[in-house]
Amino acid sequence: MNTETFSISPLGYLATPFADKFGIPRQPRLAPHAIGTLRLLPPYDRSEAVRELGSFSHAWLTFIFHQTKGKWQPTVRPPRLGGNTRVGVFASRSPFRPNALGLSLVELAGIDTHDGVTLRFRGVDLVDGTPIVDIKPYLPYAESVPDAAGGFADASPPSLAVRYEERAIAQLSVALRQHPQLARLIDEVLAQDPRPAYADDPARSYGVRLYCYDVKFRVAEGFAHVDAIDLVG
Amino acid sequence: MNTETFSISPLGYLATPFADKFGIPRQPRLAPHAIGTLRLLPPYDRSEAVRELGSFSHAWLTFIFHQTKGKWQPTVRPPRLGGNTRVGVFASRSPFRPNALGLSLVELAGIDTHDGVTLRFRGVDLVDGTPIVDIKPYLPYAESVPDAAGGFADASPPSLAVRYEERAIAQLSVALRQHPQLARLIDEVLAQDPRPAYADDPARSYGVRLYCYDVKFRVAEGFAHVDAIDLVG
Repeated sequence: MNTETFSISPLGYLATPFADKFGIPRQPRLAPHAIGTLRLLPPYDRSEAVRELGSFSHAWLTFIFHQTKGKWQPTVRPPRLGGNTRVGVFASRSPFRPNALGLSLVELAGIDTHDGVTLRFRGVDLVDGTPIVDIKPYLPYAESVPDAAGGFADASPPSLAVRYEERAIAQLSVALRQHPQLARLIDEVLAQDPRPAYADDPARSYGVRLYCYDVKFRVAEGFAHVDAIDLVG
Repeated sequence: MNTETFSISPLGYLATPFADKFGIPRQPRLAPHAIGTLRLLPPYDRSEAVRELGSFSHAWLTFIFHQTKGKWQPTVRPPRLGGNTRVGVFASRSPFRPNALGLSLVELAGIDTHDGVTLRFRGVDLVDGTPIVDIKPYLPYAESVPDAAGGFADASPPSLAVRYEERAIAQLSVALRQHPQLARLIDEVLAQDPRPAYADDPARSYGVRLYCYDVKFRVAEGFAHVDAIDLVG
């Protein structure tokens, strides 16, 4: 039995549009309008610590799956296999793993070192408040392997077109004043069909929380229909 | 000041040919004949935990830089910039970082579930005994970004040709009985010129520890000259 342990501490907490887990893109970069903001905590909040980071277009975020409470099992059921085939936890990117470490490739969107250090990333797939424990530059010459075999996740998932119902259009026009990128973000998030893999009831309504909005939608005939964009508490 | 901490524990310790830090390839996959072996510790040593991992050609190893003793500085001097230009620690893959987490993309070379679980990886760049804390499949559709900007590490480093002196040839022929891949591994390791960036004395001799051998070499006129392959302790 293994008892050696190492301690890690957040560099900061990523602010994202995803108020809860449901609807989060299943991989980073599927939703380029999902912007995450990371303010580095002391003692990491020094401009020198990110010097030259801006010369890279992409970065790896290593983070903690902080909502999993340390639970894991030897096998998991990835959504890509319809949610009913079990694969080994180490053959998956499941959050429920022995060490709750996550890895996410994001685009660098901006670095502000005017008052402390604030980093902006494009295409985040993390819930609001995720603890970030490392930032590393992406090295295309070493880490881009286009001909690698991707097993059961070998291709991009199929995507849905998005249609707005009348009420949603009216609500969207108000919401856009506050969040100009909301329409595109909704399109990107719903395009990847966030429903559980085993569900396919065209009458069933789902809600995705983006910023302070509850985006209500149904999926029917290859379209995601947005019924409402309600402000929530 | 940030005090939240998370604990992580090794899944196992990677056995590699690299007895110490000097000479280790500066990125994974530069030395495909560097094979690493990982025996999973209980309770992770169950065949289910790696089911379907074999359908992926590449995997990410998340590991602990266990020889850094928690030291870090806001800036580091990457070898790629000649060792005398400072960049931010988060713009580098330096081992000396706030959380001593490393990330290495390796090829999957074999999975043995006959007695516990033993994984073999090709192209490792880690010192013998490195604690591995996570294994994740590589997702080419999401993680291969060939047109990403790689900053100061945008292209593969230049490489040296390797020549063996007479004594080294004799020693190599004996060593190959024990380690048939040793010649190729030496070629790959020396090709990347493991000398410190600021050193360029053609008379100076260096030693790289591979398995139980001390590989003595000099670098002159674009060649790495192997002088001896001595057995050590």
